[in-house]
Amino acid sequence: MMTLPGVPQVVIDRLPVYARTLAMLKSKGRQVISSQELGDELGVTPAQIRKDLSYFGRFGKQGRGYNVQRLGTELRRILGLEQEWTMVLVGVGNLGRAILSYRGFAPEGFKIVAAFDMHSEKIGTTVGGMKVHSVKSLPQYLKSSPADIGIIAVSAASAQDVANVLVDHGVKGILNYAPVALRVSEGTRLKNIEPVLALQSMTYYLKGVVP
Amino acid sequence: MMTLPGVPQVVIDRLPVYARTLAMLKSKGRQVISSQELGDELGVTPAQIRKDLSYFGRFGKQGRGYNVQRLGTELRRILGLEQEWTMVLVGVGNLGRAILSYRGFAPEGFKIVAAFDMHSEKIGTTVGGMKVHSVKSLPQYLKSSPADIGIIAVSAASAQDVANVLVDHGVKGILNYAPVALRVSEGTRLKNIEPVLALQSMTYYLKGVVP
Repeated sequence: MMTLPGVPQVVIDRLPVYARTLAMLKSKGRQVISSQELGDELGVTPAQIRKDLSYFGRFGKQGRGYNVQRLGTELRRILGLEQEWTMVLVGVGNLGRAILSYRGFAPEGFKIVAAFDMHSEKIGTTVGGMKVHSVKSLPQYLKSSPADIGIIAVSAASAQDVANVLVDHGVKGILNYAPVALRVSEGTRLKNIEPVLALQSMTYYLKGVVP
Repeated sequence: MMTLPGVPQVVIDRLPVYARTLAMLKSKGRQVISSQELGDELGVTPAQIRKDLSYFGRFGKQGRGYNVQRLGTELRRILGLEQEWTMVLVGVGNLGRAILSYRGFAPEGFKIVAAFDMHSEKIGTTVGGMKVHSVKSLPQYLKSSPADIGIIAVSAASAQDVANVLVDHGVKGILNYAPVALRVSEGTRLKNIEPVLALQSMTYYLKGVVP
């Protein structure tokens, strides 16, 4: 399955949620689900689900619903989730420690293979079973062990420099936890983990309901 | 400024990024910016920016660009960012500690006012200058000190129970870090901080470019 041109980013962003919900339904023994029921599970309209899926082909028969296992498997294939993805972590403060101990990555095929920090007191220590390397050794590391994804958990002031090193050494995906808008070259996928941005769009709705 | 019906969620989600970029431009002394330049800064098309802003009125004069300060101020007003928002944190593990030490909240008007945990060895300790209370006291706390937003940083297994308590006691916004799809009542705004979901939509694009 190729990357199809013209599929909106927002559609791609919804597919993992669909895949996760289907996996949950499958674990409960569910075999078939209607777009109405799936929409109820997800909090979206059935029309939205049908439209999103229509970019990738036909998955259900009119009036018969979706085969839970088949649709889930197909979505995982479309999203590229049937392979393992390697990640390097840069920044081993509280946040980096939380990321290293986060147990949600590995079961989904995302593997942190190395951790880096700029602070000499952290270099050489072991955090979450992983040795912390000097960020100065990051270019050399990536030359010998290319990684798919870089996780940035450094301060806002250092994040752009780290991003540049990652991109210059072949990392094509960046998950950024630093509170700063990074600039990356075209061809690099950037996702920001942004609690403040999430809060700031939430308050648009809250300001009407909270006294 | 009210909450306008019919503005798509994805538009609301983009406004904080616009506001942040405008603040950055203002700090650099920039007074006016065209939608083309603003789009270049943001990695979106100028047409997208004009369309997003058109939901809220007219902000620029044709061919004259946007007044950086005025547009930034107006977006902050639309988003409800001119007031302080109170937040309670539930879960003080590594992630909760990182959240308590995160310095990005306060400057943006988001204030963590209390922290709760279910593990007896943590209750009564002080983390990031904040005393950790028993999660059993959360209902009573919220009755006497209503909070706008609840941050959930507990395990996936406990997250729904915590969400129920928050919602039942008047919390209207939830920022969920637990790797689980929560169900909340209508009228509650839920945002998931989801590194795996972010990664899973990234790999759609990476699978074509990474060997």
